[in-house]
Amino acid sequence: MIQEDTISAVTTAPGNAAIGIVRISGADALQIADKMFFAASGKKLEAYPSHTMVYGFVRDREGRDIDEVLTVYMKAPRSYTAEDVIEIQCHGGMQSIRQILALTYYYGARPAEPGEFTKRAFLNGRIDLVQAESVMDIINSKSAAALKIAVQQQEGFLSKKLKEVRRKLRDVIVHLEAVIDYPEEDIEDVTYNEVKNSISEAAEEVSILLEGAHTGKILKEGLRTAIIGRPNVGKSSLLNTLLKEDRALVSEYEGTTRDVIEEQLVIGGVPVLLADTAGIHDTKDFVEKLGVERSRAFLDKAELILVVLDGTQPLTSDDETILAAIKGKNAVFVVNKTDLAESIITKTLAERFAPENVIEISAKTKEGIDRLESWLKEYVYGSSRQSDEEIYIQNERQINLLRQAADSLKDAVEAAENRLPYDCLTIDVDRALTLMGEITGETVRDEIINEIFARFCVGK
Amino acid sequence: MIQEDTISAVTTAPGNAAIGIVRISGADALQIADKMFFAASGKKLEAYPSHTMVYGFVRDREGRDIDEVLTVYMKAPRSYTAEDVIEIQCHGGMQSIRQILALTYYYGARPAEPGEFTKRAFLNGRIDLVQAESVMDIINSKSAAALKIAVQQQEGFLSKKLKEVRRKLRDVIVHLEAVIDYPEEDIEDVTYNEVKNSISEAAEEVSILLEGAHTGKILKEGLRTAIIGRPNVGKSSLLNTLLKEDRALVSEYEGTTRDVIEEQLVIGGVPVLLADTAGIHDTKDFVEKLGVERSRAFLDKAELILVVLDGTQPLTSDDETILAAIKGKNAVFVVNKTDLAESIITKTLAERFAPENVIEISAKTKEGIDRLESWLKEYVYGSSRQSDEEIYIQNERQINLLRQAADSLKDAVEAAENRLPYDCLTIDVDRALTLMGEITGETVRDEIINEIFARFCVGK
Repeated sequence: MIQEDTISAVTTAPGNAAIGIVRISGADALQIADKMFFAASGKKLEAYPSHTMVYGFVRDREGRDIDEVLTVYMKAPRSYTAEDVIEIQCHGGMQSIRQILALTYYYGARPAEPGEFTKRAFLNGRIDLVQAESVMDIINSKSAAALKIAVQQQEGFLSKKLKEVRRKLRDVIVHLEAVIDYPEEDIEDVTYNEVKNSISEAAEEVSILLEGAHTGKILKEGLRTAIIGRPNVGKSSLLNTLLKEDRALVSEYEGTTRDVIEEQLVIGGVPVLLADTAGIHDTKDFVEKLGVERSRAFLDKAELILVVLDGTQPLTSDDETILAAIKGKNAVFVVNKTDLAESIITKTLAERFAPENVIEISAKTKEGIDRLESWLKEYVYGSSRQSDEEIYIQNERQINLLRQAADSLKDAVEAAENRLPYDCLTIDVDRALTLMGEITGETVRDEIINEIFARFCVGK
Repeated sequence: MIQEDTISAVTTAPGNAAIGIVRISGADALQIADKMFFAASGKKLEAYPSHTMVYGFVRDREGRDIDEVLTVYMKAPRSYTAEDVIEIQCHGGMQSIRQILALTYYYGARPAEPGEFTKRAFLNGRIDLVQAESVMDIINSKSAAALKIAVQQQEGFLSKKLKEVRRKLRDVIVHLEAVIDYPEEDIEDVTYNEVKNSISEAAEEVSILLEGAHTGKILKEGLRTAIIGRPNVGKSSLLNTLLKEDRALVSEYEGTTRDVIEEQLVIGGVPVLLADTAGIHDTKDFVEKLGVERSRAFLDKAELILVVLDGTQPLTSDDETILAAIKGKNAVFVVNKTDLAESIITKTLAERFAPENVIEISAKTKEGIDRLESWLKEYVYGSSRQSDEEIYIQNERQINLLRQAADSLKDAVEAAENRLPYDCLTIDVDRALTLMGEITGETVRDEIINEIFARFCVGK
């Protein structure tokens, strides 16, 4: 299923750097490379074993050197796309990269569409759709944890699990079709119970996967957290402490731009998007107006509220306003200033809220920050039963399909309980199978495939 | 002369992309790679021939996969630095690149300083200083012409020429030392003439190189041009036409940011920095105030003035103000609107200025734009005698050293003419030799070397 035309694109990030790479993939890749690349040895690329980096020069149409390069020929199917692939490593300046790319076009390659290399890897059967989608997740990972998940997806952890569940469901269908074909054998009750058990088992597996999705999405997109507290409880110093711990981890290389009102940081391995009321307007004003729509919107946007309180003072009316406002939201209560005096409000808070959600800290001495980190980890990972295999689905499309599959399986279980005709069960189970097949790409329509890869970057 | 420690850095541009590369260089490169890279084949990197891209995984300290990668081991001395080099091609996301880089540090590499890979290539004798400096010129090239020059420098065109000239000068010194040692042989006149001729030949070669420097610097930095003309002569439409021609050449990939008052464009292969009076303030106002200091500064900053005039009207007093203001500057006179009527001012202008500097165009129909392009090419390349070998020095440091060498050679020629003692000649020639040796790095001090490489980017 080799694609007809040969494509090329720059695969490294734009900007001046030591190295830039132009990639060519397709049946004519080698032929195109042979016209523009000249090995210093005088030999042709084919003379070298596949995957050998060959030193030489790219020459323009007049035979003049454009750049000194290393070129590698990766013979199909042992390549990223499973087609013949040529990669030219040149000096990473715009002129050199542009001219080399233009030359690949001149000799017959066409510009690759976004994600087209990965799409070809999928269409050529080297990877499934989950693995293909994980490529962008790997590139866009915001934290080490998110990267780990994406790499595991890349390596087929989720695909394998889905394959198991689908095999189980296919067995159910075979079983049901057998009894539909031979209705005279009266084993109805046995069949319904067996089938119900099998489907329930599959449904349980799907449900475990979905539990992991909460974690996966947080690790991918960050935990949307609002920090709130009346003036002088040490909100900014806590923020600074958290940022300082994080900054030590953030290499200078990244050059993160931090949003004024929403800080991106990693706390205890969890990527957190921290919105600060102070970023919107005066905190005192904010507390007074907590009933007002705009202030509520601030809290509603957050998945978690981080309430900061001063442990050396009794709860004030401002504190009470805040505590009332966050009712029904996920919240963690951070009692600050343990370096000054023992907290006099922890007990009250523990009684009014769950004691495990009240954490004493000192933003100044950093005492207790580790407990806050542990709390966040527990919040993100705790609800999941994925601790061993760690399949945390991050991808919205996959999650939606899996949810629909879960619904179909629930319908099937109910159908079995209510002894509905076998056909009804088959339809539900078959629907779940199709939905799960869409995740891995076995049963997916072309439009969906095109949509998925259109979101990729060019060169991938 | 292998350096003691092993260094590592990211060699691709920052930003999310398909591929990122981490490079390790030094005696421990292989050992470090072996601790973090695991080939899918289960084999060690040494088991493969040098320069083979090996598919596998980078694993963290707990043995978990960080990313799926291709790793290549380039055995010393056949590598960029002439040391053992490992390059790890991973998915070009920040998390993956950062973690892999951090891991190289953990296993014993230290962060590479700016330009340190190229510095090692120089210190290990793989390239000379001119070639090393050309690396940054290649990366930073703003036009195809600038890239070509940088690549030729990289390939040693200038180094070879300097070597020739230096050999000639060394012969002169040997000759002089011989006659100093045997002063009894009375051949003074012959010696002085011979030596003078040899030095003059060398001086001539240096002078040809210096002529090329004007072209080289323009191609590297862009020709600083001011466009000027009274209102309604078609200045903006000319600017638009030039920009449109250029924009067709500028690939979308580059994402050039164009300065509001200084446009970067390429006209007829020449990179031009075009400053527009309209970018500063109202053109009419500008013409009126041409005597004023600030307006003069605008013209003084430019190497070339592009004067736009309306060919359908006689010269106005505003035109005359402009023509008076640019006296003594390099200027080209563009007579616009040939599509409306035959120019009635070309003859006058040709008489008052050189006829070859007056060009009739129509910004509307593009007629004559090609003549403007040819004029610019002639301006940039015309004064040079480098047309065949094309050694256009771009580098300020090299140009300065070469100018000083030229001065020393001029002193030597004068000394020979004035029959000064042989010792005086030797000193001048020796000084020229040392200065030229500083260009290629043979006689350069460590501080200078450090200064040069400090201007490189990290990873190069």
